[in-house]
Amino acid sequence: MPVTRWFADAAWLGGDTAATDVLIEAADGRITAVVPGAEQPADAEHLRGLVLPGLANVHSHAFHRALRGRTHRGDGTFWTWRDDMYALAAVLTPDTYRDLARAVFAEMVLAGVTAVGEFHYLHHAPGGRPYADPNAMGEALLDAAAEAGIRITLLDTCYLRGGFDRPLEGPQRRFGDGDADAWGERVSALRPSGDARVGAAVHSVRAVPPEQLGTVAGWAEARRAPLHVHLSEQRAENEACLAATGRTPATLLAEAGVLGANTTAVHATHPTDDDVALLGGSRTTVCFCPTTERDLADGIGPARALADAGAPLALGSDSNAVIDLLEEARGMELDERLASERRGRFRTAELLEAASAGGHAALGRQGGGRIAQGAPADLVAVALDSVRLAGARPETVLESAVFAATAADVHAVVIGGRRLVAEGRHTTIDVPRALTAAIEAVLP
Amino acid sequence: MPVTRWFADAAWLGGDTAATDVLIEAADGRITAVVPGAEQPADAEHLRGLVLPGLANVHSHAFHRALRGRTHRGDGTFWTWRDDMYALAAVLTPDTYRDLARAVFAEMVLAGVTAVGEFHYLHHAPGGRPYADPNAMGEALLDAAAEAGIRITLLDTCYLRGGFDRPLEGPQRRFGDGDADAWGERVSALRPSGDARVGAAVHSVRAVPPEQLGTVAGWAEARRAPLHVHLSEQRAENEACLAATGRTPATLLAEAGVLGANTTAVHATHPTDDDVALLGGSRTTVCFCPTTERDLADGIGPARALADAGAPLALGSDSNAVIDLLEEARGMELDERLASERRGRFRTAELLEAASAGGHAALGRQGGGRIAQGAPADLVAVALDSVRLAGARPETVLESAVFAATAADVHAVVIGGRRLVAEGRHTTIDVPRALTAAIEAVLP
Repeated sequence: MPVTRWFADAAWLGGDTAATDVLIEAADGRITAVVPGAEQPADAEHLRGLVLPGLANVHSHAFHRALRGRTHRGDGTFWTWRDDMYALAAVLTPDTYRDLARAVFAEMVLAGVTAVGEFHYLHHAPGGRPYADPNAMGEALLDAAAEAGIRITLLDTCYLRGGFDRPLEGPQRRFGDGDADAWGERVSALRPSGDARVGAAVHSVRAVPPEQLGTVAGWAEARRAPLHVHLSEQRAENEACLAATGRTPATLLAEAGVLGANTTAVHATHPTDDDVALLGGSRTTVCFCPTTERDLADGIGPARALADAGAPLALGSDSNAVIDLLEEARGMELDERLASERRGRFRTAELLEAASAGGHAALGRQGGGRIAQGAPADLVAVALDSVRLAGARPETVLESAVFAATAADVHAVVIGGRRLVAEGRHTTIDVPRALTAAIEAVLP
Repeated sequence: MPVTRWFADAAWLGGDTAATDVLIEAADGRITAVVPGAEQPADAEHLRGLVLPGLANVHSHAFHRALRGRTHRGDGTFWTWRDDMYALAAVLTPDTYRDLARAVFAEMVLAGVTAVGEFHYLHHAPGGRPYADPNAMGEALLDAAAEAGIRITLLDTCYLRGGFDRPLEGPQRRFGDGDADAWGERVSALRPSGDARVGAAVHSVRAVPPEQLGTVAGWAEARRAPLHVHLSEQRAENEACLAATGRTPATLLAEAGVLGANTTAVHATHPTDDDVALLGGSRTTVCFCPTTERDLADGIGPARALADAGAPLALGSDSNAVIDLLEEARGMELDERLASERRGRFRTAELLEAASAGGHAALGRQGGGRIAQGAPADLVAVALDSVRLAGARPETVLESAVFAATAADVHAVVIGGRRLVAEGRHTTIDVPRALTAAIEAVLP
């Protein structure tokens, strides 16, 4: 079995500082040895700068990328954003969806994302009629990820109604399977290939009636598949849920068996103190999406309190208005600072953990997102020689990466031992060109 | 007089959308003609992408750049940050200060900043003894700006005490001139050359006794020079000021004649409603520094309320933990969204205005920061072909630039008709190398 060797000037192997002169060996896509303080062998590929484990983007709606920069016109309210998003959802086909997602996933790879959780609810043809292959849209996403070279967990989403007292309307009809059993039947027919995974998602407490939540949770539990759910992103969701059920969204989910160590709650921007205790106590992962939560004016969720209560944290680019996991990582800390008026809410290693191992685990990839023997050989090299990082020193290079680097500083990416990014370019896809073509095809 | 011509694919000439195919002519450093919808002449330099007017960085402490990424170690509190900053302030000399500022100003030029306001308080040798030339440190900054090619307004800062009831201590002794008259005498001896300007600053209500505020304000008024002041960045400043004087900082400044159309208040993070009315009613510019206000856990200031009350807005990179005026611009809007839970608080043109014409005016450069006949020929070209901007369309290209571009997308910069950045590189300075050398010289 051929062995590949990389030599990193510095690498994060866990803990509060980076190791230096690290030799990393892999075979068959997995890391077989990690040796800090090594000599550089002649046959090792040199990864300059700081090497991080593959980053995990735990919450993505790939097609929203087409809206980047386009939803702020005039006074750019939440409603102009939703109008734009629904107009786009109305026109996508399996072909255009695949092309767009392929380009977006490739943009993620350029940013050092080696595993993505695609929260996928655009299932059916316009009007809600199933395609000849009822999983045509999900398969388009699986194909797109394979082409881009990224590991995907397709979080196939159950989305049955438009609100507590509203049916699916307009473009939303494309989202619906009728009921959770029909949803499960369709999803069970998905046959991911290679390293792709299928997980389950409840869109939100608005979109799945309480008595059907257990069906989705049961589907995930039977398969040991990850289960994701949007939670309390807006105050209006909390109020509507209380009015309709007498419970907060987190309480409703807990009673239906949706929370737990296999579950990821996305956002958790407006939980009550009891909700925080429920999420933490059940070891539910909470996925923050700071750049989207800023963009959509959601507010600042209690990340520190959730972590203290026992919830593992993860990060997502969500609307893909920004694709930069380093910015998401510092965003979680910096938004905490704005809300608390205190610095140093998270150690840098905690932020990196959320962007890597915490995220991989939330995507059903336990053991991923670490540079350690036995882990998948996913490596991300951050250059330290740009104007942004110039002057960084070894003792605080992790802080430099998290607080001063951007996705533009990622110069090399390895996924499963295979080089996907070299000198800042994707090895098989011209990403700006692919993005432009795919977006113009759907938003001319 | 030789005429230079540039041809922009798109350019922001004011208003809510960009003009296309814009011919810009300049002579002797000023714009002589602006023609949208033009043919591209053979002798015009092509500026691809979107051309913006020169950006203004209204609030900088250049030397803080050396601390980037280094102040978050452990749990990185405000106090570890201040310890680091004072340790650095203790060791700078005129030579190392010039070298560091030259590199930092060059980094700003790469980011499209054509005018900087350097809030300068590190005046004297360690212990507080004046240098043989008492303005040696200020002149180092003026030289640095000239070498980097940036327009500077040196905001020479009066800093007389360590707090309401504390003298200057330790490294702070380097900041003090004894009293405001001595400060004025020293500053009056500064002879800026070329386009450099000298303005005045009151460090804060903590650092200048109330009865001496009028001396600084009078110095600025007599010279029609800009006057800047840190205001209500932390709640502790408000509390100490109330305890010591019975007034809020803004009230104290208003009574001393410090507020007005010639004045810029920096931060204004924690003003009372009355303070907002005072600032707006006096037409005091308020300079927000969102990336620093996040980093230092200051909180979110009421930018929209201040603008509604009549205060013009400007933007600054302050601690230079980030140098990216586009990020500051979107940061002001996005942090407003987090605080208000509403989108669309500012029109994109308002954000651009704060980053350009509003900022130039705050630096005593009225009429700058516009692409218009008679304005200084400062132009910034933002590429639209990176992964970040791919898919941008002409109708919303301003939104794309403000919400999706970064300093890394600035590929060409012209200052006073002279090309300072080409293909993303400074034409005379290797900026990463200069930063590394200058930082290692002071923080080995």
